[in-house]
Amino acid sequence: MQAPVRAALKSIVGDAHYRDTDGDLVPFSRDATPLFSARPDAVVFPADTREVAAVLELATRHAVPVVPRGAGSNLCAATVALHGGIVLALTRLNRVLEIAPSELLARVQPGVTSAALADAAAREDLLWAPDPGSRTVATIGGTIATNAGGLRGLKYGVTRDYVLGLEAVLPTGEVIRTGGRLHKDVAGYDLTRLLTGSEGTLAVITEATLALRPAPRTSGTGVAYFADLATAGRAVDAIISDGVLPATLEFLDRSCIRAVEEFAGLDLRTDAGALLLFGDDGEPDSVARTMARMSDSCSARGALEVTTAARIAEAEALLAARRCTLPALSRLGALTILEDATVPRPRIAEMVERIDRIAERHDLTIATFGHAGDGNLHPTCVIGSRENTGAVARAEHAFGEIFSAALELGGTITGEHGVGAAKFPHLSAQLGPDQMSLLRRVKGAFDPAGILNPGKLGS
Amino acid sequence: MQAPVRAALKSIVGDAHYRDTDGDLVPFSRDATPLFSARPDAVVFPADTREVAAVLELATRHAVPVVPRGAGSNLCAATVALHGGIVLALTRLNRVLEIAPSELLARVQPGVTSAALADAAAREDLLWAPDPGSRTVATIGGTIATNAGGLRGLKYGVTRDYVLGLEAVLPTGEVIRTGGRLHKDVAGYDLTRLLTGSEGTLAVITEATLALRPAPRTSGTGVAYFADLATAGRAVDAIISDGVLPATLEFLDRSCIRAVEEFAGLDLRTDAGALLLFGDDGEPDSVARTMARMSDSCSARGALEVTTAARIAEAEALLAARRCTLPALSRLGALTILEDATVPRPRIAEMVERIDRIAERHDLTIATFGHAGDGNLHPTCVIGSRENTGAVARAEHAFGEIFSAALELGGTITGEHGVGAAKFPHLSAQLGPDQMSLLRRVKGAFDPAGILNPGKLGS
Repeated sequence: MQAPVRAALKSIVGDAHYRDTDGDLVPFSRDATPLFSARPDAVVFPADTREVAAVLELATRHAVPVVPRGAGSNLCAATVALHGGIVLALTRLNRVLEIAPSELLARVQPGVTSAALADAAAREDLLWAPDPGSRTVATIGGTIATNAGGLRGLKYGVTRDYVLGLEAVLPTGEVIRTGGRLHKDVAGYDLTRLLTGSEGTLAVITEATLALRPAPRTSGTGVAYFADLATAGRAVDAIISDGVLPATLEFLDRSCIRAVEEFAGLDLRTDAGALLLFGDDGEPDSVARTMARMSDSCSARGALEVTTAARIAEAEALLAARRCTLPALSRLGALTILEDATVPRPRIAEMVERIDRIAERHDLTIATFGHAGDGNLHPTCVIGSRENTGAVARAEHAFGEIFSAALELGGTITGEHGVGAAKFPHLSAQLGPDQMSLLRRVKGAFDPAGILNPGKLGS
Repeated sequence: MQAPVRAALKSIVGDAHYRDTDGDLVPFSRDATPLFSARPDAVVFPADTREVAAVLELATRHAVPVVPRGAGSNLCAATVALHGGIVLALTRLNRVLEIAPSELLARVQPGVTSAALADAAAREDLLWAPDPGSRTVATIGGTIATNAGGLRGLKYGVTRDYVLGLEAVLPTGEVIRTGGRLHKDVAGYDLTRLLTGSEGTLAVITEATLALRPAPRTSGTGVAYFADLATAGRAVDAIISDGVLPATLEFLDRSCIRAVEEFAGLDLRTDAGALLLFGDDGEPDSVARTMARMSDSCSARGALEVTTAARIAEAEALLAARRCTLPALSRLGALTILEDATVPRPRIAEMVERIDRIAERHDLTIATFGHAGDGNLHPTCVIGSRENTGAVARAEHAFGEIFSAALELGGTITGEHGVGAAKFPHLSAQLGPDQMSLLRRVKGAFDPAGILNPGKLGS
């Protein structure tokens, strides 16, 4: 990057908010995705929309790549600066601007964390529903940019369902406002939803108006063990067929159960082939009813054991089993590759069987957990050492086969983590060449110079 | 339109499904929007996706406009062939292809009516949630193309929230498949939602995969009368603040109450300034509780009278009051112009006051009803005679002022009816010139020859 561009960046954001030493750039060369790293030329921390617009306008004029970034907690290498250039860190735009209980909405800057927004909403007895696993660190900007999911997707949907309006800066520097404060608004193309999930390739989000919900009064949690995932899958089908859309419906396969038990000592049944965590929230009588109905469905479909938590502490312990699955697996090796292929709900057991066979064929350890309610699986490969390049290469092959299997079963290569750089090579297998061309044309409509997050969606 | 194009159209769809006589074209010169009409050159009724693709490819090659059309029940002149050309009527693609209870989804062709889908879902104890007023005639293709709302928006959202995947034909003839059968799928830009609400200007929808919900076991309905809309508005705020998101929360202003009573004789209180219809659905005990809480909120905020329906027949009578508001108003004059400006919920009363003042200033009768839960208002102007060009011109001015007022209060020029040709002149006041340019570039990415529904969104 040329000296005049560096100087111009400094004058836009101020010297204190411009960094380009090696030491400064190291943490911005990676995100939470293993195996991907690339060094940007500089990192800038703008203070407001005006500075974001000035940086983008400069970057378009000089054809310098710009990678917008929140916490960098994504799992698809969406914020790795593949082509160098500027990392645009939005962490200084971190204010909750407004919580409006009478309109059930919040207005926030993109650098606010998901947990901070949830806390601000909770103080008004409101719920910020999207709850990605990374919620304590992930920013709302990144949550929107990846259309993040979470554990409550079946009942509460995904981030997209809660984005009412956006302020965003186009790569050419214009500031647009899409949507607004309304749940019903059909004036123009739905750019709000198009920007949601666009992974920083179309525009930079500088403010978001988000829908909140009344906070549920109570919640319940239970656990059921099954001999195998196929039986657990039939219990899930029975729950849904019974007309229940629960807040929580998570599963762990045999390997995950054992890893969690070794890690956290939660007295899980390690002889089981599958653990199903189920829960609901709402009014006390309604929660009691759905919990009973889910327990009954599990028992009727052959659960080895069904327990519901009588106290909050017990419920927290059960939820902890799911929340600590990834750390528990990570402990098994130096390198953990977490994926999120997704299939229609009735195909979960079949998909996990395929994953097990693929792992065996490639001599790999792949444990699978995920969201049973929406078919969103997280096959997780654990490799003993990062230097084991043979195993890393085998894992890459294995995941290629896993994505193909997901597509064969009517699924997707990514349910909630995103495409980024990590899955971009697999995207055309799902979308086909005509849609890939269309994505490039849509990208061109926003970003004529191709400066925003190049090498990813729309490339 | 030149003879070779006509001949090619006939060879694509077959002689029996091509029409171009004056008599044939009259019903396709209008939709449900008053004051707009334009004669197409031909109407074709394709049988399948392949024929749709052939028609579009031909039209792009010859630069002939194409207007996709379902039932033509939209209220924004979205299907009027402003520039002539081909009306592409999708009514022969009218099959429910699949109802999958275990996946809570339906797969349908675009010509299926909303009511037919709801009936097919109900046979499996499932709910198709979107319920636009035109549901008995409106097609699913049109419902998706306009992102239609309805009476249950506050609790159940709008059509967009239920579209999982689409098959669509680009104006250049390529067939794409967006999304799929999954609630979580972030592979690529969200073209599913971009096409939803694009009003037939980007692509032609030939198949849709739609989310269903478990059917609620029961429902309840009640009515409250208030001295004026401001008081009713405070009751609505109290209901929402109490943590209730009810299925129904509709209001009628004084003029609507009187028109409905004269039309249908339902024993409504014609001395009241506002009628609030409230209802919920779900499990019996939960419905009983929310109905009691909503009744209490209304009473506590000064309702003149609150009644809840004890029997289904009573509930139907109350709902009929709302469903027959438009026919009741239509009876007051030869020309009824129904609009749908929307404002944030706490601004409803203020907006209706402004509407009343605007109507008075222009010497017009404008009655307002709508969805109190989401601020979606339907100011409706009734004019005695279509030949009263002075009144028609005054109505156009008045609605211009109404849209400006909605924007001033943080609202939108259209909550659920769409932009079409009718509101296109007002769109830039809401979106601004930069976003209008962006819409044109997005349109260009899909439709390089500009053949799809010209003169509307993206023009």
